[in-house]
Amino acid sequence: MHDTEHDQDDRTDPDPLGGSASEDSPRTDEPPRRGLSRRGLLGLFGAGAGGIALGAGGALATTAFTAGGSSSSDTYDFHGEHQSGIVTPAQDRLHFAAYTMTSSATRTDLIELLQDWSFAANRLMQGLEVSETGAFGAPLMPPDDTGEAVGLPASSLTLTFGFGPSLFQDAEGNDRFGIASRKPADLEDLPGFRGDLIDEAISGGDLCIQACADDPQVAVHAIRNLTRIAFGRAQIRWSQLGFGRTSSTSQSQDTPRNLFGFKDGTANLKSEDTAAVNEHVWVSGSDQSWINGGSYLVARKIRMTLETWDRASLNEQETITGRDKKEGAPLSGGTEFTDPDFASTGSDGSPLIPHDSHVYLANPEQNSGARMLRRGYNYVDGTTELGQLDAGLFFICFQSTPQTFINVQNRLAQNDAMNEYIRHISSAVFAVPPGVTTSDGYIGQGLFS
Amino acid sequence: MHDTEHDQDDRTDPDPLGGSASEDSPRTDEPPRRGLSRRGLLGLFGAGAGGIALGAGGALATTAFTAGGSSSSDTYDFHGEHQSGIVTPAQDRLHFAAYTMTSSATRTDLIELLQDWSFAANRLMQGLEVSETGAFGAPLMPPDDTGEAVGLPASSLTLTFGFGPSLFQDAEGNDRFGIASRKPADLEDLPGFRGDLIDEAISGGDLCIQACADDPQVAVHAIRNLTRIAFGRAQIRWSQLGFGRTSSTSQSQDTPRNLFGFKDGTANLKSEDTAAVNEHVWVSGSDQSWINGGSYLVARKIRMTLETWDRASLNEQETITGRDKKEGAPLSGGTEFTDPDFASTGSDGSPLIPHDSHVYLANPEQNSGARMLRRGYNYVDGTTELGQLDAGLFFICFQSTPQTFINVQNRLAQNDAMNEYIRHISSAVFAVPPGVTTSDGYIGQGLFS
Repeated sequence: MHDTEHDQDDRTDPDPLGGSASEDSPRTDEPPRRGLSRRGLLGLFGAGAGGIALGAGGALATTAFTAGGSSSSDTYDFHGEHQSGIVTPAQDRLHFAAYTMTSSATRTDLIELLQDWSFAANRLMQGLEVSETGAFGAPLMPPDDTGEAVGLPASSLTLTFGFGPSLFQDAEGNDRFGIASRKPADLEDLPGFRGDLIDEAISGGDLCIQACADDPQVAVHAIRNLTRIAFGRAQIRWSQLGFGRTSSTSQSQDTPRNLFGFKDGTANLKSEDTAAVNEHVWVSGSDQSWINGGSYLVARKIRMTLETWDRASLNEQETITGRDKKEGAPLSGGTEFTDPDFASTGSDGSPLIPHDSHVYLANPEQNSGARMLRRGYNYVDGTTELGQLDAGLFFICFQSTPQTFINVQNRLAQNDAMNEYIRHISSAVFAVPPGVTTSDGYIGQGLFS
Repeated sequence: MHDTEHDQDDRTDPDPLGGSASEDSPRTDEPPRRGLSRRGLLGLFGAGAGGIALGAGGALATTAFTAGGSSSSDTYDFHGEHQSGIVTPAQDRLHFAAYTMTSSATRTDLIELLQDWSFAANRLMQGLEVSETGAFGAPLMPPDDTGEAVGLPASSLTLTFGFGPSLFQDAEGNDRFGIASRKPADLEDLPGFRGDLIDEAISGGDLCIQACADDPQVAVHAIRNLTRIAFGRAQIRWSQLGFGRTSSTSQSQDTPRNLFGFKDGTANLKSEDTAAVNEHVWVSGSDQSWINGGSYLVARKIRMTLETWDRASLNEQETITGRDKKEGAPLSGGTEFTDPDFASTGSDGSPLIPHDSHVYLANPEQNSGARMLRRGYNYVDGTTELGQLDAGLFFICFQSTPQTFINVQNRLAQNDAMNEYIRHISSAVFAVPPGVTTSDGYIGQGLFS
């Protein structure tokens, strides 16, 4: 119980029970009770207090504090065949974080981190504090939970974890965690696209967590506490807040508007279309079986030059988009959900939906039927030094292979009339493992067995 | 109708009707119908299109587009004795913007800008687009409204306007708008405080707008469109988003938690306490009568070193704050709303509420009875290059004289134990004129008459 950090670095046994107080508990269908690993508790308590921490934590695990709790209607289950936050009806708020493993982290550290994150995610998604001692533990200890979400409901929180290509092999070609041979062939850094203005400081990452909720304080709280748990093993590389979903992922949701003022995501994959989701979102038949049932997450921060866009005429905006602004109907006619008729032409013989419009270029019909599940968010990071809104779309999509995104983005990057008003400034891709189906399982377990 | 910008700069008549299509309308108790000034429309349409713009706007003002609208329960009235967004029950989301007048702007420009902002604010607060032509005007014109809030309700939007000291006299001592003699004696740049780490790029401003709403997209939409209207007259100097209110301003509201995990604003002034609000929030008897019925807004961006705070013990956190973390009760005992007993001592004779605690130093009892109405927000601007949360409190308070804030902050800056965990990185003060009570009035009208 009094291991130092150094001692733990020497351990090679990926003990899934992490040596916590309840490691003798029988395995049941209950949510995992094993608690955080010593390293996870060290992250919460501070390295110097590690020894004391565990003692206090154990003693207080049974105190009667009742967490904020939440109504079941806005709570999603951490456990399931797939991770949450993908086909879940898109919540309104996002905090996305990408992490770098510390240079000293071992394979055991990585496994324990994923176990700790799984334990904590299961609690956070229920509206509970990050550990059983909660936000008000022992007077002489730092509280396990930072406390800003106490009293707030679960708010539909979902947490989605992903592995970047660099986790498997770093820039120097090192196989830091003994998993290089387990990297799916599909998991490669995205290529550069025409017009890219990528800032490496807000791109990539060994790991990512997508936190979505109906309350931003709940999403921020989750990322903050998962980051604390990672202390000494992984640190945040970059993070991004988003405030308005720009897609619907369920037929029950209205189509929201992006910062161009257009309905966005009308043609998005919907969770109710199970056959399409199975075909286009979930991985199957991968060269690496551990990723089957998972997905690939692509994230692109797309700055919009809003002041310029706002000076384009309605006609130009609609021609660029390929849809009308008011209803979101394709320019070939009908209503929002009418299929675009790319063959229809106007009186002058030119296509009603221009071939350099966003809808034309991104439509599955023009992309060999390829589809992706979009799950992006509007963002405003304040104001630039020129007084312009530092704002745009934090684009997130899930697909069964990143090649889908690459193909579509190649077409968009070369021809999309919208490119005049957008700049891709960050880029990342992550393999999203399948869900956790056993009470003692953890995210990415298949990668290590 | 075809004035160029240059022509308009030469005009000196601050025509309150702005030359819009309805300038012949009789004055009634209806909301103002006069519409935006030519300059305001130029801001929306683009300078080159100004002539066409007005024609098209006039023609389309009667089209049948129905705006998003909103339920009355989440709508506040722009008109009233005081501006909205002060004693209004604190909404959950903030977009705050500070503006600099352009170097070429005249007194007339300033007046017309305030008229345009008043016209637009009255519409936006009703959940309407920024002008009658809305988000889908004429095909060959840029839409008046940027459109991202179409279909969203008013979401309790309030818009609060303020005037900075530099509006009256710039850094070179110039009286750009002929109002230097009308500056209230109380309106001075805040002094430097011990420990200040002020970034001038996110401080000060000639004008400010505080947009609060229950939906961040609504607040962002308001700031974005009011900024467009200001084109050529004022530009954003800096802006800040906030996502979680850190105070209650009504007895009907729960006390929220700040990013330190503590309940914040327990002892805040509440709107129901009319006598206290009249004494401590609204200006009366100023040397400048135009500000009577208004208030003074102080804004301070306070970065929290959360990673360090999170490693402080519960006991240290509570001792610094002067309240217990779970319930928010003063350390002298009782429940959240029990008055602190600063005279109570522990068994060792030391005060239960330490004299360097935040509650002790900020309490009215220790500040000659001075009180302020706090209306701050949590913020997270992402992550620093060191992987730490770039986060904290965007502190806003309203008071009948900025001296209240200065007195309290002087005490806090010198003695507050919390200073170890916070850094004040921006500073601004604005005179907030009273509300608009007539249908053809505008914000700050008294300053120009």
